[in-house]
Amino acid sequence: MKLLLIGATGSPYFEHCKQEMISFLSAARRVGLVPAASLFDEEAYFRALDERITRDPQPITRELIHIRWNSNWREALNRIDAVIIPGGNTYALLKRLYHSGLVDVLRQKIKDGLPYIGSSAGANITGPNILTTNDWNVVGLTQFKSLALVPFNINPHYVERDVSDAPHSETRDTRIREYHQVWRNPVVGIQETTVLKVQDGSVSVRKNSAKIFYQGGRHQWVEAGNKFILEHAPEDEPLHVPQRSPA
Amino acid sequence: MKLLLIGATGSPYFEHCKQEMISFLSAARRVGLVPAASLFDEEAYFRALDERITRDPQPITRELIHIRWNSNWREALNRIDAVIIPGGNTYALLKRLYHSGLVDVLRQKIKDGLPYIGSSAGANITGPNILTTNDWNVVGLTQFKSLALVPFNINPHYVERDVSDAPHSETRDTRIREYHQVWRNPVVGIQETTVLKVQDGSVSVRKNSAKIFYQGGRHQWVEAGNKFILEHAPEDEPLHVPQRSPA
Repeated sequence: MKLLLIGATGSPYFEHCKQEMISFLSAARRVGLVPAASLFDEEAYFRALDERITRDPQPITRELIHIRWNSNWREALNRIDAVIIPGGNTYALLKRLYHSGLVDVLRQKIKDGLPYIGSSAGANITGPNILTTNDWNVVGLTQFKSLALVPFNINPHYVERDVSDAPHSETRDTRIREYHQVWRNPVVGIQETTVLKVQDGSVSVRKNSAKIFYQGGRHQWVEAGNKFILEHAPEDEPLHVPQRSPA
Repeated sequence: MKLLLIGATGSPYFEHCKQEMISFLSAARRVGLVPAASLFDEEAYFRALDERITRDPQPITRELIHIRWNSNWREALNRIDAVIIPGGNTYALLKRLYHSGLVDVLRQKIKDGLPYIGSSAGANITGPNILTTNDWNVVGLTQFKSLALVPFNINPHYVERDVSDAPHSETRDTRIREYHQVWRNPVVGIQETTVLKVQDGSVSVRKNSAKIFYQGGRHQWVEAGNKFILEHAPEDEPLHVPQRSPA
């Protein structure tokens, strides 16, 4: 299994992680892209990404194929050597992957070796569940289990302090503490320009850094050039909603 | 029906909206408080709020009763003249209100005239659904319909630009646009120190301002001292997850 997980799709798209993507995709002739996280115009989103990925003076790859969750995706999947899922709304993305049946086929193909690049929402869905996304569940999704390719949840666009966000709103770290009141698996906060490469059972930080949060409050920063191994099996069952006895 | 909706619980608790609460609660002898939005120690949360609300040199009210979602809440509800639900995790709050049965009883009592104060998560739950909360669904809630006391959704801790948040992450306005790709009802963004009073079918902004977002992209700021009337019935059915035909 070979994954490249990126904190943000960025602007211009993938500018901040272009070299890592070129290197990751070097053996791929045809690359598929699933723009299903967009709640707006998926066709326009694909075209803008294609422009950036294949038409740039230094292209990331030569041929990009639009994988449509609502049309002929099985045939399209058989023609590709690698797949990219960029950002948008994580709940919309997972809902469409379930609705179409893509979720199981994609998981199996990636497990069988199809190289996968996910940015933002596309990174989120590689964990056991998507409940540490920053996105709103505007599509009313009720299935939160995800691809479970890695044993940790992801929080993309991670910032340690939301200093200019509303001052009395929860920080990311508080929200992750809330998550760990209910779930056991680690959460990895990846900054917008962080790139993680997952291969051969270990995770290497290729750019910027990642903050790993463990249940119980412990955390650990891992900087570019370092690896981490999370040996625990994916833990996708919640503990409970804590019920404290009245005093 | 008489509601006071506040953008944030704040620190010190309710300092920014103390006069509005004192005035709103002037006829209430015993006030109940439901601290069920806390995923941490609800007992400690209640005590800290009680200290602030009843023991201050200028108390907000004289007697505060802890309404526990998991113990004897029916009896406690019959003893109170007003109810407060402060902030925390909106998904945890609504899950506990459903689990206990409080959701229906509370809705009916408020419709029958029990004055209600909700801050942050407590304001969120007065809309048709809670899907415009900033909180993460760490409890895996799958029922999103809420009290539907007002015909608009609420986004508390509203800030127009999350300038220091991750720069390539969605702004609140983008997230609300995503909501309106799926749902019809208006969304009202309330800043942390905004206070809305709902009474006799109209909503008055008592402090700071509110930004009303309509489906289709139109929005309107309403400043303190002004009222707005939203005549449409609560709209709590989603449109669909947009499926665009391939080009």
